[in-house]
Amino acid sequence: MHASSAKYIRAVSTKAELKRVRALHQKKYREEEGMFLVQGMKLVTELLASGWPVQEIHSTVTVAAHLRHPKLQIWPAYDLERMGTLEHGNEVVAVVPRPERTHFEPMADDELVLAVDGVADPGNMGALLRIADWFGVKRMLCSVDCVEEFNPKCVQASMGSFLRVEVHRVQLPRMLDGLRASGAALYLATMEGDVVFDVPLKRPGVLILGSESHGPTDAVRALDARSISVPRAGGAESLNVAMAASALCMEFARQRSMPS
Amino acid sequence: MHASSAKYIRAVSTKAELKRVRALHQKKYREEEGMFLVQGMKLVTELLASGWPVQEIHSTVTVAAHLRHPKLQIWPAYDLERMGTLEHGNEVVAVVPRPERTHFEPMADDELVLAVDGVADPGNMGALLRIADWFGVKRMLCSVDCVEEFNPKCVQASMGSFLRVEVHRVQLPRMLDGLRASGAALYLATMEGDVVFDVPLKRPGVLILGSESHGPTDAVRALDARSISVPRAGGAESLNVAMAASALCMEFARQRSMPS
Repeated sequence: MHASSAKYIRAVSTKAELKRVRALHQKKYREEEGMFLVQGMKLVTELLASGWPVQEIHSTVTVAAHLRHPKLQIWPAYDLERMGTLEHGNEVVAVVPRPERTHFEPMADDELVLAVDGVADPGNMGALLRIADWFGVKRMLCSVDCVEEFNPKCVQASMGSFLRVEVHRVQLPRMLDGLRASGAALYLATMEGDVVFDVPLKRPGVLILGSESHGPTDAVRALDARSISVPRAGGAESLNVAMAASALCMEFARQRSMPS
Repeated sequence: MHASSAKYIRAVSTKAELKRVRALHQKKYREEEGMFLVQGMKLVTELLASGWPVQEIHSTVTVAAHLRHPKLQIWPAYDLERMGTLEHGNEVVAVVPRPERTHFEPMADDELVLAVDGVADPGNMGALLRIADWFGVKRMLCSVDCVEEFNPKCVQASMGSFLRVEVHRVQLPRMLDGLRASGAALYLATMEGDVVFDVPLKRPGVLILGSESHGPTDAVRALDARSISVPRAGGAESLNVAMAASALCMEFARQRSMPS
């Protein structure tokens, strides 16, 4: 597509607009406005292709030539540098409405859901989204104290998986108890749990992952969940929550593909 | 231990010394001096407990009270801020000789080795060390273009696993070919490889991981290695190299624990 054929609004950049977008770097304003940012050419292209609602796009003139959106606004590179949060490649910033997810549909018979308890690092949260997406996990439950999935670092670390994995922010212990009561098997990843290879992993199932630094909260530990672990053969004190998730999802995938 | 009982040298900080330690932020000087940095109380404590040679330690007076080393030097916090590379917690910096690893012993019958081809990100490299350590992998081969394992970000991301996992920097394709000739099975992680659950994983074995952005190099692809993959069920385009390593090491661990 050529620049001449792209539909975009040539606007004089205004300080007020720049400030409005920049405010979305902060959680407080993301919540107030109900918006979040998606940045970088690769991710914005994927976003547009996905059919997600996109409120507006801000970009350099070069990038604008490759994008189509009714509200595409061109800025000088130095303004975009201030508008975006990335270290490099702040050439395009999309402002996107946060999805409303108030209802959690009953789990499908063969569904696996990830539940995340108090993960504060946006890189880890983004990695968890990406792992969920790889292994075909479509829904993730997060405790209210987890880092926001719309944190720009999390969005970028998820590499577009935020488009496919639904995150539900819930009162986690209560929600998990409800799922258990409706027949889901709960599995809690811990250091001292049963070696997961010895545990028949049932579905619908929920894999609960605690925060890297503190592990699961007492309320989550008090649930009627089977404790499972990634067997340790070496000297490392712990596995990062994303690595543990990847290892455990692998065994969930294996047992599903090879029913014994 | 009390400050009064700790053996340390109270020295007037000098600009030249600060500069000498700071130079080790850079690969060039780490190589010239044959030294690298280990930082933060947790890691330095683990380092001292491990019995590794430590050339010198620089710390605040508070931290010095908890450490024992013949060359422990006290600095004001603002000097340590400049000496260290961490965002937070630059209260102790150890200067450590780089181990010489010129000889790669023949592989043990049941050994698994990780081989890393062109991984440039120090966070990923540190994560790989941590994963290796968790799963009991004691040796790692790295292509010469991999990020240096003594990069401060890598050292810190490894969470002390650099103390237990031996990294050998080698001409990777030639080395792998030699290992194959001596009877090791080579496995190459790729997106399109055979689903690893269907592959009997033999030992001694080498799991080869390519760089996240480019995958394995042509020379590595040309080796007589079995291509294996982490099965994908969802929409994610790729798995980060550390997550893939965690998932694949998991299956290596399972097959070893449950010979079929």
